Amino acid sequence: MTTPVGMSHPAPSSSLRNPFPAELLAALRTRFGERVTTSSAALEHHGKDESAHPIARPNAVVFPDTTEDVSAVVKLCGEYSVPVIPFGVGSSVEGHVLAVHGGVCIDMSRMNRVLAVNVEDLDATVEAGVTRKQLNQHLHDTGLFFPIDPGADATLGGMAATRASGTNAVRYGTMKENVMGLTVVLADGSVIRTGGRARKSSAGYDLTRLMVGSEGTLGILTEITLRLYPQPEAVSAAVCAFPSVDAAVRTVIQTIQLGVPIARCELLDALTIKAVNRHSKLSLREAPMLFCEFHGTQASVEEQSRTVQEIARELGGLDFEWATRQEERTRLWQARHDAYPACRQLRPGNRAFSTDVCVPISRLAECIAETNDDIVKASMPIALFGHVGDGNFHLVVLIDPDNPADTAEAEALNHRVVMRALKMGGTCTGEHGIGLGKLDFLDAEHGAAVQVMAAIKKTLDPNNILNPGKVIRSW
Amino acid sequence: MTTPVGMSHPAPSSSLRNPFPAELLAALRTRFGERVTTSSAALEHHGKDESAHPIARPNAVVFPDTTEDVSAVVKLCGEYSVPVIPFGVGSSVEGHVLAVHGGVCIDMSRMNRVLAVNVEDLDATVEAGVTRKQLNQHLHDTGLFFPIDPGADATLGGMAATRASGTNAVRYGTMKENVMGLTVVLADGSVIRTGGRARKSSAGYDLTRLMVGSEGTLGILTEITLRLYPQPEAVSAAVCAFPSVDAAVRTVIQTIQLGVPIARCELLDALTIKAVNRHSKLSLREAPMLFCEFHGTQASVEEQSRTVQEIARELGGLDFEWATRQEERTRLWQARHDAYPACRQLRPGNRAFSTDVCVPISRLAECIAETNDDIVKASMPIALFGHVGDGNFHLVVLIDPDNPADTAEAEALNHRVVMRALKMGGTCTGEHGIGLGKLDFLDAEHGAAVQVMAAIKKTLDPNNILNPGKVIRSW
Repeated sequence: MTTPVGMSHPAPSSSLRNPFPAELLAALRTRFGERVTTSSAALEHHGKDESAHPIARPNAVVFPDTTEDVSAVVKLCGEYSVPVIPFGVGSSVEGHVLAVHGGVCIDMSRMNRVLAVNVEDLDATVEAGVTRKQLNQHLHDTGLFFPIDPGADATLGGMAATRASGTNAVRYGTMKENVMGLTVVLADGSVIRTGGRARKSSAGYDLTRLMVGSEGTLGILTEITLRLYPQPEAVSAAVCAFPSVDAAVRTVIQTIQLGVPIARCELLDALTIKAVNRHSKLSLREAPMLFCEFHGTQASVEEQSRTVQEIARELGGLDFEWATRQEERTRLWQARHDAYPACRQLRPGNRAFSTDVCVPISRLAECIAETNDDIVKASMPIALFGHVGDGNFHLVVLIDPDNPADTAEAEALNHRVVMRALKMGGTCTGEHGIGLGKLDFLDAEHGAAVQVMAAIKKTLDPNNILNPGKVIRSW
Repeated sequence: MTTPVGMSHPAPSSSLRNPFPAELLAALRTRFGERVTTSSAALEHHGKDESAHPIARPNAVVFPDTTEDVSAVVKLCGEYSVPVIPFGVGSSVEGHVLAVHGGVCIDMSRMNRVLAVNVEDLDATVEAGVTRKQLNQHLHDTGLFFPIDPGADATLGGMAATRASGTNAVRYGTMKENVMGLTVVLADGSVIRTGGRARKSSAGYDLTRLMVGSEGTLGILTEITLRLYPQPEAVSAAVCAFPSVDAAVRTVIQTIQLGVPIARCELLDALTIKAVNRHSKLSLREAPMLFCEFHGTQASVEEQSRTVQEIARELGGLDFEWATRQEERTRLWQARHDAYPACRQLRPGNRAFSTDVCVPISRLAECIAETNDDIVKASMPIALFGHVGDGNFHLVVLIDPDNPADTAEAEALNHRVVMRALKMGGTCTGEHGIGLGKLDFLDAEHGAAVQVMAAIKKTLDPNNILNPGKVIRSW
């Protein structure tokens, strides 16, 4: 492989399909000036995410300001059949942003304007680089909020692209339910708008939902219209310790089956609590715990929490410990969100290999129990936590990236957990996406339907330039 | 056009693309025996829906028992490039089931088994010919129910295919939110399963949502996994009369903006109430009315209804009249559901031309006010009612089908109402679908995105045999 003229980085991705065209870089520099970079630091930063997948650097990074800028990048790259990879903050965990075939990374961070907030209609339109925290800060005085909360302060574009969810999904749904419309740059650089601001529509194929979760492989999301919610009149949060993971899970199952509109319902196993205590300087009892949050009117919140406390008590749960003040709640949820980095610190220098299955709630206790047997037998520390109100849980497996045996063991464990979930009617990924890591599992889960997905990919991106190698195998 | 051998009906559809192949009919008869018919009565019945579109008969009707049967019909028709049109109960209102290019109607009525109810997971899997009332009767003793309720006792397959909603959508969403997975027969006769039973998934492209609302043009839905809900502990319903449509609409807008989780919130104008009184033998005050229903715990229901009553009073609404007993509620909602046939009786012998716009709720009062000006000027009776909690409302325009001036006036009115809704950020159809009648409006609403829809249609159905002429223009 020759190093193209004008490129300052020493080692373009080794799996680049073709040498990176110097003419393309020149054309990008002409249009974008200092908003295109090939610095080593930038390529390194944009060639990795939070996963354990090895770094794969792009050849250049462009920082568009507008949808037209994104369209121009895609058109230019299309002329040379060079991949384009959209990049938010790099918080994905299945290698979504890795430039495994090289190409141009489109960093959306400058497209960070909140374009419209329609308070009366409970919706907002944002550029794809706006993060969820930024949006909620912007909404602060409106009495509204955007509930989807995957932990990381991800961009809303990235969250839409991976069909993200997180702690609030049990009540408010996932990005699937909360994206109303999109502006999308297609593989030929043309721009479409999907969906709209009406609360419902039967007008044609649901391209919005097709794009949500397509991980940048069918189009690049540049603007997103989102559903907002009134800030609840009352919010209360509590933690509750249990004698076993099983007792905690059974409490959740009964809560959901009773139709309690609980907003958040998170399980953390004892090891996760230990990590969280250490990381966030808390002193929670090191036992399996549920973190619960209730939203509604004062009366409704009291009623919900009474119901859940009763269920928990019957199953051996201790008394709820309440976080009533806003600061206490913020601290509690920050600790929950920091479970991932906290767990990583259990074995400093290690990388985290994360699993992400989701099963029908009737099978959740069984699925977690069998998985706990795997954890006990593993050679490394493994933390278990998750959004159990949805039937979704994660393992964080701490692996030494320089030890192939660790990686092999983690992959074998992941395989076992995914196959178990599929056998129980579940999915190989509740919220992380397919990315690079789950192509085989997508086949196992969806069989012949994957051919339909591939046919759609080939129709919308015939030259496979949009984030190639993710969701659908490159051809 | 020659009449094919072996066909007993006198006049095949005049727009049949090609003469109907005798060999195909013979092959269908060999496989399906008495489950294929070409009787005049059957062709007539299967060539029409509830819309004002003229009848377009299929050439034959087949009654499959299984997904494999459907696959066999599609494969056979594919060999001859003959259209296949799925048919539920014929309650669609945009000509979805009309055989405008002739072909074989697939009547799903024998595929009416409830295949599984998972009480613990709050889901059920049904064959596509199961109707919503049948499902709810089946669920009667489980404590669960399926909320989506378009009025007609439609099949769940038809409801999924048109992305239907109805009175409960304001709280429970539409078919988009409540279909978890599908079994689909594709244009080549192959069978895929989409989605699954996990409450959320990020595994690949959302083919479920692509199929929901595709009106039989991308595949034929044969099995559907649906989300169920616990029957609320308490239900209360009330009607409230207002001095004006505007006052009623403003009450709804404030209710939604406050985040009151109202389950149903329906507007009926004075003419609709008059029609409903006559049809359902009620004695409601002939004024604009809201029909409201509240679901929740006893305390929550009381709180919700108190809030809405207060808003209504401030806007000039009279006192709520309660329907507390189940029988009263059933009677009330049956009357609401019968608004469509009731309005048709306002001018016996006429057909109903139905509009179906949906706008962001902040524009609803304005949209309805301007539309009321149109109604006043019209030469025929026009009733206005709808699911105003979603921003969705209908006009029922009563036209003499033998008077072209009536049709022209209704179409002009529809055009004006749709364009008004689009200008306000709304959609040309909230819940009825595109069918035959709204192809131009789909272009007006979605512009270049319609080309993406057409590209997907051509990829999944290259010979255009799946319900041709609906959603996407035939090519």
